[in-house]
Amino acid sequence: KVIWTVLVTILGYASSLPVGDDSLCTAEELAKYKIIFTGKWSQIAFPKQYPLYRPPAQWSSLLGVTHSSDYSMWKKNEYASNGVRDFAEKGEAWLLMKEIEEAGEKIQSVHGIFSAPAISSGTGQTSTELEAHPRHPLVSFVVRIVPSPDWFVGIDSLNLCEGDHWMDEISVDLFPYDAGTDSGFTFSSPNFATIPQDTVTEITCSSPSHPANSFYYPKLKILPPIAQVTMVKIKKSQLGLSAPFINLPAKSNEIIDSVS
Amino acid sequence: KVIWTVLVTILGYASSLPVGDDSLCTAEELAKYKIIFTGKWSQIAFPKQYPLYRPPAQWSSLLGVTHSSDYSMWKKNEYASNGVRDFAEKGEAWLLMKEIEEAGEKIQSVHGIFSAPAISSGTGQTSTELEAHPRHPLVSFVVRIVPSPDWFVGIDSLNLCEGDHWMDEISVDLFPYDAGTDSGFTFSSPNFATIPQDTVTEITCSSPSHPANSFYYPKLKILPPIAQVTMVKIKKSQLGLSAPFINLPAKSNEIIDSVS
Repeated sequence: KVIWTVLVTILGYASSLPVGDDSLCTAEELAKYKIIFTGKWSQIAFPKQYPLYRPPAQWSSLLGVTHSSDYSMWKKNEYASNGVRDFAEKGEAWLLMKEIEEAGEKIQSVHGIFSAPAISSGTGQTSTELEAHPRHPLVSFVVRIVPSPDWFVGIDSLNLCEGDHWMDEISVDLFPYDAGTDSGFTFSSPNFATIPQDTVTEITCSSPSHPANSFYYPKLKILPPIAQVTMVKIKKSQLGLSAPFINLPAKSNEIIDSVS
Repeated sequence: KVIWTVLVTILGYASSLPVGDDSLCTAEELAKYKIIFTGKWSQIAFPKQYPLYRPPAQWSSLLGVTHSSDYSMWKKNEYASNGVRDFAEKGEAWLLMKEIEEAGEKIQSVHGIFSAPAISSGTGQTSTELEAHPRHPLVSFVVRIVPSPDWFVGIDSLNLCEGDHWMDEISVDLFPYDAGTDSGFTFSSPNFATIPQDTVTEITCSSPSHPANSFYYPKLKILPPIAQVTMVKIKKSQLGLSAPFINLPAKSNEIIDSVS
């Protein structure tokens, strides 16, 4: 039903691209996007210690923000805020929402917050809408990996604006990050605060370099993506007053099939 | 910081008021509301079998919709849809989102979907915004009680419109419901499908009338509210382009203190 025409896939986006620069966005209007998050955390792709019970592998709510370069939700190799710590460790969003609110009030660096419902398995989908602004064209979000000590996936400051226009569609593969606040090694490790706090680091198949690590796969070169996010610009003709938030895409397999 | 002037509290709203009638709304414009959900599921208020571990008492993501009277998300004494069943049993939102989408496409009965992040304890808060339309002035939502067999709290078809204007603020106490799809008696009962499916029923301190039920408190007349929701109309002057989604309210205790 939905035709997926152009699909820009950036592999390993977060670690390979520079931080989005919002100073060049000369698009004239607000842009609305449908954002679809797809979990790819299957037992086949990630057999080691795959969580089956209490709780089984799943994803938290998605919490995101559109903002300018004056705000950063999280950043690789920097320290996580207390809000990101609460979210990465417990899925608790309140403090992070307050941090975003304050950034919006104090330095006008935030356009809006968005959230999407949690996913009750490792491989489902969730979806919501977001709105970007020429002065706030960057999108960041986090989704907690459940269960885990303080692991999450997300996007840091992806620029949806290209000069004088908004990108039609972008898809990004996601890989796990460690918030640096809990020293657990495995999905079901008990709480064990990291003191002093460490920076946010990407978890790879070889780092942390310890066989006990849940993502340690010494025979792999890189981990398969554990999730994927796709953002599709909503055309104005689809913005009927009676249904601004609908038009969900097809279920995961259909999306994947149509781009492979 | 936030001044709570008028607070209309409707006790036991869902069971005592008729279904919202949207035929009389002559307000001219869209209305935006901040919706704040407050969990009141404490061990003090609900000591029986209070879940402390794997998982402790908490709330799922909130999933809601603004709609006309041609759509119903859920209704007391009627059968839950498959989407509501998935959400109430597992917190899985996808099917319910698709059902809402279809209602929007086929009979134009839906204005928009909204969601708010999960709460990692029984007594926290979460928040988001929603938009209502004169032809779609009713709001419904569900939040799953975690852990539980298929229990949830929510609102069914609350009318935000009063004749020619939108309500400024409304607060509703919430009580637990059973989706009628899983026969578990207690918070941590194993899955046990109810066949044939039962209707959605309110859980009270005396019903189901069985001592094993987690909410069975024979000495009480009514249960204390297990949650509360407040919707506050966002004034146009607060709808700055640079910050449409912010202005979160104060934390739960402050809200409660200022209205008591």
